[in-house]
Amino acid sequence: MHKVIFQFESGGDVTIFAAPGENLLELARKANVVIDAPCSGNGSCGKCRVKLMSGTLKSNKSLHLDSEFNEGWRLACGSTVNGDVKVMVPDIASAYKSRMKTADLSSPEEVRIFTELQENLRTAGFNQSGQIKTFSVRMDAPTLDDTMPDNERFSRAVREATGAGHVIVPFFILRKLPDLLRDNDFALRCVGELFDGTIEIMDISSDAGTVPVCGLAVDIGTTTVSGVLVDLQTGDILAKGSAGNGQIRYGADVINRIIEQQKTDGIEKLQNAIIKETLLPLIEVLCLDAGVPQKRIFRMAVASNTTMNHLLLGINANHLRTEPYIPAFFRLRPVLTRALGIELAPAAKLSVAPNIGSYVGGDITAGALACMIWNTGDLSMLIDLGTNGEIVFGNSEFLISCACSAGPAFEGGDISCGMRATHGAIEACVIDRDTMEPRMTVIGDIRPVGLCGSGIIDVIAELFRAGIINGKGKFIREGRRIKRDEFDIGSYVLAFPEESGSGRPVSISEVDIDNFIRAKGAIFSAIMTLITSLGFTPDMLEHVLVAGGIGSGINMRNAVYIGMFPDLPLEKFSYIGNSSLAGAYAMLTSEDAAGKLEDIARSMTYLELSTQPGYMDAFVAACFLPHTDGTLFPSVSDEVT
Amino acid sequence: MHKVIFQFESGGDVTIFAAPGENLLELARKANVVIDAPCSGNGSCGKCRVKLMSGTLKSNKSLHLDSEFNEGWRLACGSTVNGDVKVMVPDIASAYKSRMKTADLSSPEEVRIFTELQENLRTAGFNQSGQIKTFSVRMDAPTLDDTMPDNERFSRAVREATGAGHVIVPFFILRKLPDLLRDNDFALRCVGELFDGTIEIMDISSDAGTVPVCGLAVDIGTTTVSGVLVDLQTGDILAKGSAGNGQIRYGADVINRIIEQQKTDGIEKLQNAIIKETLLPLIEVLCLDAGVPQKRIFRMAVASNTTMNHLLLGINANHLRTEPYIPAFFRLRPVLTRALGIELAPAAKLSVAPNIGSYVGGDITAGALACMIWNTGDLSMLIDLGTNGEIVFGNSEFLISCACSAGPAFEGGDISCGMRATHGAIEACVIDRDTMEPRMTVIGDIRPVGLCGSGIIDVIAELFRAGIINGKGKFIREGRRIKRDEFDIGSYVLAFPEESGSGRPVSISEVDIDNFIRAKGAIFSAIMTLITSLGFTPDMLEHVLVAGGIGSGINMRNAVYIGMFPDLPLEKFSYIGNSSLAGAYAMLTSEDAAGKLEDIARSMTYLELSTQPGYMDAFVAACFLPHTDGTLFPSVSDEVT
Repeated sequence: MHKVIFQFESGGDVTIFAAPGENLLELARKANVVIDAPCSGNGSCGKCRVKLMSGTLKSNKSLHLDSEFNEGWRLACGSTVNGDVKVMVPDIASAYKSRMKTADLSSPEEVRIFTELQENLRTAGFNQSGQIKTFSVRMDAPTLDDTMPDNERFSRAVREATGAGHVIVPFFILRKLPDLLRDNDFALRCVGELFDGTIEIMDISSDAGTVPVCGLAVDIGTTTVSGVLVDLQTGDILAKGSAGNGQIRYGADVINRIIEQQKTDGIEKLQNAIIKETLLPLIEVLCLDAGVPQKRIFRMAVASNTTMNHLLLGINANHLRTEPYIPAFFRLRPVLTRALGIELAPAAKLSVAPNIGSYVGGDITAGALACMIWNTGDLSMLIDLGTNGEIVFGNSEFLISCACSAGPAFEGGDISCGMRATHGAIEACVIDRDTMEPRMTVIGDIRPVGLCGSGIIDVIAELFRAGIINGKGKFIREGRRIKRDEFDIGSYVLAFPEESGSGRPVSISEVDIDNFIRAKGAIFSAIMTLITSLGFTPDMLEHVLVAGGIGSGINMRNAVYIGMFPDLPLEKFSYIGNSSLAGAYAMLTSEDAAGKLEDIARSMTYLELSTQPGYMDAFVAACFLPHTDGTLFPSVSDEVT
Repeated sequence: MHKVIFQFESGGDVTIFAAPGENLLELARKANVVIDAPCSGNGSCGKCRVKLMSGTLKSNKSLHLDSEFNEGWRLACGSTVNGDVKVMVPDIASAYKSRMKTADLSSPEEVRIFTELQENLRTAGFNQSGQIKTFSVRMDAPTLDDTMPDNERFSRAVREATGAGHVIVPFFILRKLPDLLRDNDFALRCVGELFDGTIEIMDISSDAGTVPVCGLAVDIGTTTVSGVLVDLQTGDILAKGSAGNGQIRYGADVINRIIEQQKTDGIEKLQNAIIKETLLPLIEVLCLDAGVPQKRIFRMAVASNTTMNHLLLGINANHLRTEPYIPAFFRLRPVLTRALGIELAPAAKLSVAPNIGSYVGGDITAGALACMIWNTGDLSMLIDLGTNGEIVFGNSEFLISCACSAGPAFEGGDISCGMRATHGAIEACVIDRDTMEPRMTVIGDIRPVGLCGSGIIDVIAELFRAGIINGKGKFIREGRRIKRDEFDIGSYVLAFPEESGSGRPVSISEVDIDNFIRAKGAIFSAIMTLITSLGFTPDMLEHVLVAGGIGSGINMRNAVYIGMFPDLPLEKFSYIGNSSLAGAYAMLTSEDAAGKLEDIARSMTYLELSTQPGYMDAFVAACFLPHTDGTLFPSVSDEVT
C-alpha cells in the first residue's frame, strides 16, 4: 500500500492508503476530496489538475497540460499511484466545491428580484398564503358534563379557527396534546398544512410568544444550488445562499451523472453528494444566518431538472437516458424531508416542481411560473441558461418549451479558466481595438482568478469586435497577450500570472471559444427552431427574459453580437436572475401560485429538438460568430460596417 | 455499592449493583427482572416473593409470609439492600412473565370460536375483505410514442385493476418502481390499502409466485395479551398465541399502571413493557410458528381498554384517572407501526378499536361487534370477565354498556395461588361433600401449580355447596385440608407440597375467597344495575354471552351458584372465548365489520356506575354467597333444599 496525501491549497490535508495502480481521481472520490471533474474522468476537460508536491505518480501527458507538466501539474484522472505521494489540490480547481456563499440581502439586485416577484404575484391576483398556516385555538376546558376527548375537542377548535372541513391530528401531535392543552389552559398556537379543505397539524405550542414558521425554497441546478429561507407568515426572505452542486465531481452534465449513478452504490453516492454534501451544509448556513432553528422549517420546495430531482430522491435515472427516455414521475406527492435525511420540522415535506419531460423539468415549469409569461398576451420567451439550456415560448394562450444541452459553459464550466459568478470572476470586459489590452470588471473588486459566463460572452464578443478572432473563433491577430502552444492552439491572456489572483494566468483559448460557440449555437438554434416550429418569426417576440447563473452582469448587446440571442431591440431583453429559485419561492409561499404551477405543467407542450427536422442543420449553422447566415444579425453587420 | 444477584428458578441470573437502602423490587425493575407485583409494591398482594439464597436483606415481616419467612422467602417490595445478596426469583411468581404460549390451532375449541365468527360475519352479510388488497397489474411497456412516466402508468393500471378512483404511490414504492417494472416486463403483484375510494400502495413485487399477505389482530388485556396472525387473502388463522402483559410488574390494574406512568420515564417504561417485552416477542413467535416473515404483515388491529391503548401509544393516561376523566382520543387515525418501534411491512399501520369512554374501551366495542348481539332482536348480554369487567346489554335496537373494576381475580390475580389458564392451572374441581377431598382437572394433565379463574369459581362453589364455607366465605368445617394461620385465617389446601407441581402447596384462603366474592359481587351488581336502569328484568334476557380469559372450562352452573351471574336457565349461557380478540380479527379482515364497529362505537351508550343511584348498595348486597337476597337465586335455594 502507498500513502497518498491530498493537501489543500487553502490549508489542511487528507491521507488515504492506496494499492499500486489505483487511479488518483477515483482515490480522491473515495477520500471525499472534491476535485473538479466535469468530464467525469475521461481526460477530455483538463479540469482535474493537481500539483505533485513530493513522491511519484504515473501520469499520462495531456494536451491540457503544457509547460505546466514540468511545473508538477498532473491530471488526477490520468494519474495512477506507484509510490507514496503528496499532491496539492488547488482551490481554483475546486471552484465548484461545496463552499457556501450567502447573499447580501440588502444589495439592490437581490431586493429588486424578489420585490418584483412579490409584486407580480400580487398583480396576478394570487393570495400570498401558502399551504402552511399558523393560527391560534382556544377551547373550553372539559368538565364532567363535557367529556369530549382531547383530540376531538382540539379538532373542533381547529375547524372553527381555520374553516377546514377535516382535521388530521398526527400521532406525534396527539402524544403531546393532553399535557400541552392542560399546561396552557386549553389555548394553543398551531402550525398546519392545508390541502383540499383538510388541515394536517404540524406543530403545537404555547400560545404565548411567537416562534418562527419558515419554509425553504431551493433551486437544484446541475452546477449550482441556490436556496432562500423564507418567513412563511410574511413571505419575507430571511437568508439566501448558494453552493456548488457536490455531484459535480461525478460529471459536469446530467448524462455523466446518470452513468455514475449506475455504478456500485451510485444511487446513494449521487444522493449523498447533493443532500449530505450540498443541501445540509447550505441549510445550516441559511439557518445560522437568519438565526432560525432548522426544526422551524415546515416546508421545502425544490425546483430542478428531471435528472436532478431523480438523483435527489435516490431514484434510478437511467431510464431517462435510454430509449424511450421515461422518467419515474412528472408530478410527485410531497415527500417527508426526514425520509431523505433532511431533518427539519418532524412533519416537514418536500415538494418538487412538476416535470413535463425527461429533459424539461421542474426548474422550467417553476421558471415559467415566476417569469409571468403566462400572464400577458404579448409573445414572450424565457431562456434559462443553465447547464441544460431550456426555453419556454408563448403567452397567456399557449406555452411551448424545449431543452438543449448547452453544457456548463454559461456557468463557467468547460472553459479552462471558467468559474461560477463568485469572487474573483471576470464578469465584464472591454478590449481595446488597437492595443488589445483588456479592461475588466471583477466580482469583489479583487484580482481576477477566472471567467464567469457573462465575462466569457464579453471577452468573445470583444475579441471578435476587435478582429482578434474570426467568425470561427480562431485567432487572426498577434500580440503580447496572444499565445500559441506547441499544437498551434491560440489563446488570449486576460491576466498574466503576476496580474492574477491565483498566480496562474487567466486566459481563454481557441478550445474554450469553440466550446462556448457550440453552447451559444445550441441556444440560438433551439430558440429559432422553437419559434419557427409554430410559424412565428423572432421579430414577433415582445419580451426575452434571460435567467440562470450566468450573472446579472450579462451584456445583452454582446450576447446578440456573438449570435447567442436573436437580433432584437435591446429593450426587449431583460435579465431576471434565477427564475427557477423564484418559482420555488412562489410555490412555497402562495397556494394560488402552486396551483398555477400545476396548470402550467399540464398545459405546456414540449418540443423534442432531437427529432425536429432541421434542428441539427440550424445548430451547425449557428456555430459561427455571429452566424453563418449574416442576414439574421443585421445589427452586427451594421456595427462591423 | 452492594452486589445483588437475581437467580431465576428456571436457570440464569442477572447481577446489578445497588446502593445501601435500595428497594429490591425497584432494583429488579431497573435490572429488567420480571417479578410479579400486582399491587405495584405497596405490600398488599404478597405476590412479589423471592427467596434469599445468600447474603443479607433488610425485610419487613409480612402477613403474606408465614412459616415461609423462616425458609428464606421475602417480599421484594418489603426488602431493602444492606449488603451483597443473592435471591432466587421463582417461576411460579412470574406466572405473568412475558412467556409466549402459542395455541394449538387444531384444537376443537380454537377451531369452533373462529369458524363460528367467520360464519356469523358472513351471515351478517359482511364482505370478507379488509382494507388490505392484493392484486396484479400488467401494463404496456413505454415507447417513444407512449412516454407516460412510470408512476402515472402504474397508477393507471392500479385504478383499472382495483376500481379505485385515486392511487397513492408512496415514496418508498416510487423508488423501487422503475427497475421493478422493467425487471418484470411491466407486470407486478401489489399490496395496497383501500380507503374512501383511494388505494395506497404498500408493496410491489414480481408477479411470479406468491408471497403471503398477513395481518395481525391483538387483544391487549390488562393482564393477558393475545394475538392471531391472519392470512389476509383467505381470512385463515396462521398462528395464535398469548402472553402475560409485561406491564403487570407496574401494577395489576389500570389505576396502578397510570400512577406508574406518571413517574420519571414512566410513559416510556410502560410503553416498553407492552411493546418491547410483550408484543415484539409475541409477534416473533407467531411469525416463527407460521413461517411468515414479519415484513409480510401489512396491518395490525388492536382491541384494548382505553387505558391500555393510551399506554400502548405512549400517551399520558393520567387524565383518564383524574376528574373529569378525559381520554386523549376515542377514535384514532391508524398509526404507522414503525412509529411505535414495531417493524412490520414498511407502511404497515396499527388501527385501534374505538373507545367510547374512559373506562369502556375498544375491547368492548370490538367484543360487541364479534358477539353479534347487535344482529338480533333478542335481548342479549355480553359479559367480558377481564381485569375490568365490562358488560354490554341490548339488541339490534340499542346497546348500553358499563364497566366495573373486578380486579384480576378472573384471570387468577389477587388470589394467592392464582394463575392464568395455562399449563398447571386447576380449571375445574369437585369436592366430596363428606371427605372434603378434591377431584381436579388440571390444564395439561400435570400436577397442579395454581388456580385459574374457572377453577376458582368451581372451588368456591364446591366449598359452599359442601358447607365448608358459609355465605360470607368463612370456613365453618374442619378437616385435614383446612388450615388456619396464626391470625386464624382459614384456608383450603387443594394440593399439599408433595401433590403439587411446584413443591409448594396450592390452596385458597379466606382472603382469596373474599377477594373473589368482591369481584363476582361487582359483576353481578353491574349486571343488575344495567338491566334495571332501563326498566328491564333479568328474566327478559335471551342470551348471556360470557367472554374473557377465565377459560372455556367455566362451569356456568357454579358461576350462578356463587351469585356471579343471574339465575337463568343454563341454556341461555354460552362461553364465547376472547370476544375482544375476535372483534380485532373481524375489523382486520372485513371492511364491512370495521365500518360496523364504528357504528357500534357511535351508537352505544355508556352507563357510569359510580354515579348510578343504588349501585353501591347493590354491590354490598352482592358480596355474599350467592347473595344477601336469596330470592334472586331460587335455583340455588332449590339445590340447597
